[in-house]
Amino acid sequence: MRQVMIIGAGMTRFGDRMDKGASELLLEAFDEAIRNVDKGMDRRDIEMAFIGNQGVGGSQLALIAAQMVEALGLYGIPAFRVENACSSSSFAFINAVQAVASGACDIAIAGGVEKMREISGKQVRQWMGVAGDNEWERQIGITFPGAYALAAQRHMLDFGTSREQLSQVAVKNHEHGFNNSKTHLKMKITLEKALKSPIVAYPLNVFDCCPTSDGASVVIICAKDVVSKYTDRPVTVLGYGAASDAISISNRYTITSLIATTRAAQRAYQMAGITPREVSFAEVHDCFTIAEIMAYEDLGFCPKGEGGKYVEEGHTKLGGTRPVNVSGGLKSKGHPLGATGTAQIMEVFKQIRGEVEPQRQVDNNKIGLTHNAGGFGGTATVCIFGMR
Amino acid sequence: MRQVMIIGAGMTRFGDRMDKGASELLLEAFDEAIRNVDKGMDRRDIEMAFIGNQGVGGSQLALIAAQMVEALGLYGIPAFRVENACSSSSFAFINAVQAVASGACDIAIAGGVEKMREISGKQVRQWMGVAGDNEWERQIGITFPGAYALAAQRHMLDFGTSREQLSQVAVKNHEHGFNNSKTHLKMKITLEKALKSPIVAYPLNVFDCCPTSDGASVVIICAKDVVSKYTDRPVTVLGYGAASDAISISNRYTITSLIATTRAAQRAYQMAGITPREVSFAEVHDCFTIAEIMAYEDLGFCPKGEGGKYVEEGHTKLGGTRPVNVSGGLKSKGHPLGATGTAQIMEVFKQIRGEVEPQRQVDNNKIGLTHNAGGFGGTATVCIFGMR
Repeated sequence: MRQVMIIGAGMTRFGDRMDKGASELLLEAFDEAIRNVDKGMDRRDIEMAFIGNQGVGGSQLALIAAQMVEALGLYGIPAFRVENACSSSSFAFINAVQAVASGACDIAIAGGVEKMREISGKQVRQWMGVAGDNEWERQIGITFPGAYALAAQRHMLDFGTSREQLSQVAVKNHEHGFNNSKTHLKMKITLEKALKSPIVAYPLNVFDCCPTSDGASVVIICAKDVVSKYTDRPVTVLGYGAASDAISISNRYTITSLIATTRAAQRAYQMAGITPREVSFAEVHDCFTIAEIMAYEDLGFCPKGEGGKYVEEGHTKLGGTRPVNVSGGLKSKGHPLGATGTAQIMEVFKQIRGEVEPQRQVDNNKIGLTHNAGGFGGTATVCIFGMR
Repeated sequence: MRQVMIIGAGMTRFGDRMDKGASELLLEAFDEAIRNVDKGMDRRDIEMAFIGNQGVGGSQLALIAAQMVEALGLYGIPAFRVENACSSSSFAFINAVQAVASGACDIAIAGGVEKMREISGKQVRQWMGVAGDNEWERQIGITFPGAYALAAQRHMLDFGTSREQLSQVAVKNHEHGFNNSKTHLKMKITLEKALKSPIVAYPLNVFDCCPTSDGASVVIICAKDVVSKYTDRPVTVLGYGAASDAISISNRYTITSLIATTRAAQRAYQMAGITPREVSFAEVHDCFTIAEIMAYEDLGFCPKGEGGKYVEEGHTKLGGTRPVNVSGGLKSKGHPLGATGTAQIMEVFKQIRGEVEPQRQVDNNKIGLTHNAGGFGGTATVCIFGMR
C-alpha cells in the first residue's frame, strides 16, 4: 500500500450561511485548502474527488458530486458522492485514501458539505431522522435525541454517570470552540447554565445537543512519492478503520457503547501500530454530550464506564493529558452533517502542524485521532494521523 | 496496484418487484452471487461493501449502506453508500476495486439497488429529474427524455441519423432481452411497432425509452493473490475509467456526445492497454435509443456521426461484429438506477465465462466492456474485462 499524506485543508465558518449555496460553500472550503498548500498547487493536479453529503437542501438532490466538482473548477475529473449520514465525508476520505494508495491517482480531494439552516425546525428533524431506522423506530419517537437520551439513561444507571458530567462535556467544548474562528456557537457557557437549559429528551438538555449547521470542508491528499513537490511538512495517514452496525437499536446488544466505533478503532490502531495510550489528542463525534463520554470508552482512552469521571477529572480539556475536541467539536463548532468528517481531519492536520489559533494549540500534538459516527453509530470511522 | 478480479455475480429479475423491499432485493442478488462462486465462499470472508443507490423509495432514506449490509448478513463490515444517479453502482464498483487494489482488503462486494415501481408516474419523473440540473434546467422541461430528445434532434440534423435507426436499437435490444431470464420488458417488437408508438419527447417514442424498474445486482471482487481459493476462472478487471461533466447541458459544448464517456473510455483503454478495435462485445448505457448510438461513437466503436449506420448494418446485434447489449440493455432488461452498473458488469462476467442462456451467448467473448452514465452524462464509467 502506498503511503498517503495530507497536504492541505480548508473549511468554511460553520453556522448560519444563508449567504451561500452548497456548491459555493464547498468552493470556499476548497479555495482555502488549495491556498494553504505550502509550495502552491495548480487545481489541475487534482485527479479525483470524493464528496460527502447527506442531502443538499433545496437544489441538487442527486448526482451531486458532478455539480460540486464543476463548481470547484475541477471540470471532468471522476467525482463520487458518498452518503453515510453524519459520517459521509470521513467515508469519502477513506475512499480517497484507498484511491491514492492503490496507485489509481496521486492526488485526490475528500470533502463534504451540508445546508441545514434553510429548513425549519420540524422538517429538519424529519430530514435528519431518515438516517435512523425508518421501518420500526423513528415513527415511534426514536429520533437521534431520543436514541442518545436512552443511551445516557442507561449509562447513568449502569455506571453512575452524572447529569453534571454530561454538562461538563458541553462546558469544555464551548470553552474550546470560543477560540476557533470557524465556530457556529461561539459562546462560553457555565455549568449552571448548561444544567438549567430546557429538556430536549430526558436526561438531555438543549446544551447536551449539537446545533444543525451549514458548512463545508475539504482536505487534499497526496501519495508520498510526489509529496515533496507540494510541502515539506505533510501529515501522514498512519491508520484508519471503518465499520457498520445494525441501524435499529433494538438489534443491538448494548446502547452504552457504539460497537461500530470499537471495531473501527481496533482496525485503525492495528494499521497504525499503536495503542490508545499513544494518542495525544482527538476530535470525536460529540453530537450529544453522552456521545463524547461513550467515545472516550469505545476508543480506549479510559475503561468502560469511566467516561464521566474522565471528563470530570479534566483529562480531555486543553492542557489536560489528552485534549478532546479542541476545535469545539460538533457541540460548539457545529455539525453540518456531510462536512463534519473532513472538518475533524482538518483540525488534526492543523494541530499537528501547529497552525491553529495559539489559544487552542495543544502542547503534545504528535499523534491525533478523528472519530466520526453516522446516525446512532450505524457507521463509524476512526483515523490516526502523525508526522512520522 | 494489485490485480483485481471478479469471482461471483448475481442479480434479481428486474421489473415490478412489489414482492420485496430494497434490502430483500439486494439480499436476493447477493445470495445468487455468493452461491455461484465456483469453490464456495463463506460470507464472513467479505471485508467491505460498496452500495450504489439513488434513493430507496419509501423506507431507509439515508445511511442506507449500513442497513443493507445488515440485511446481507455482513454484520459490522465497513459499508459505503455511493450515489452517482444512474451510474451509482459502477462508481461503487470502482471504489471497491481501489479498496482491494490498495491492499486495504482482499475481498469486497459492489452492488446496487433501486425501488422505482411503487412510485406513481408524476412522482417518479420528479424523483428521477433531481439528477438533472435543478437550478436552471429541470424546471423548464429539461427532464431526461427532454435532454436526450434534444440530443437526438441534433444528431439527426448534424449526421443524418434516421428515425428508423433509433428504432433499430430498440428492436435489437428487445430481441436480445427476450432470452434473458432477468428481463423486465420481455417482448419482441417490430420496427413498425417501435416507429408507431406514442411520442414521449419528439423525436423519442415510448419504445425509445427504457422502463423504470425495481431490482438489485451484486458482484464479488477479489485480489489476485487469494483468488485461487475461490475459482480457477476469475474475470480480470483489465482497466477502468471514470469522469464527470457539467450537470447543466447549457454548459456543454456539444450534446451529440457525452464527453464524460469519451474521457472515461480514454482512461480505461489506456489502463487496459487496448484500443476500441479489440473490444469483443459491450454493455452500454441505452437509457434512450439515441444514448446507445452516441455510446458507439463515444467509445470509439465507429467514427463520430456513424452510430446510426453502425446499428443499421447489424454490427451490434448478436452474431454481428461487436454485439452490444446482449443482455437486453436498459431498454429491455430494465433500469433500476442504482442496480444498473453492477448488472452490466455481471453480464460481461457471465458472457466471458460462457455462462449466459445459450440463445444469447456471444461467440467472441474475449474482451467485454461496460459503459454506465449518470443523468445526461454528468458522470460516466467505462470498465474493461477479460480472462488474461
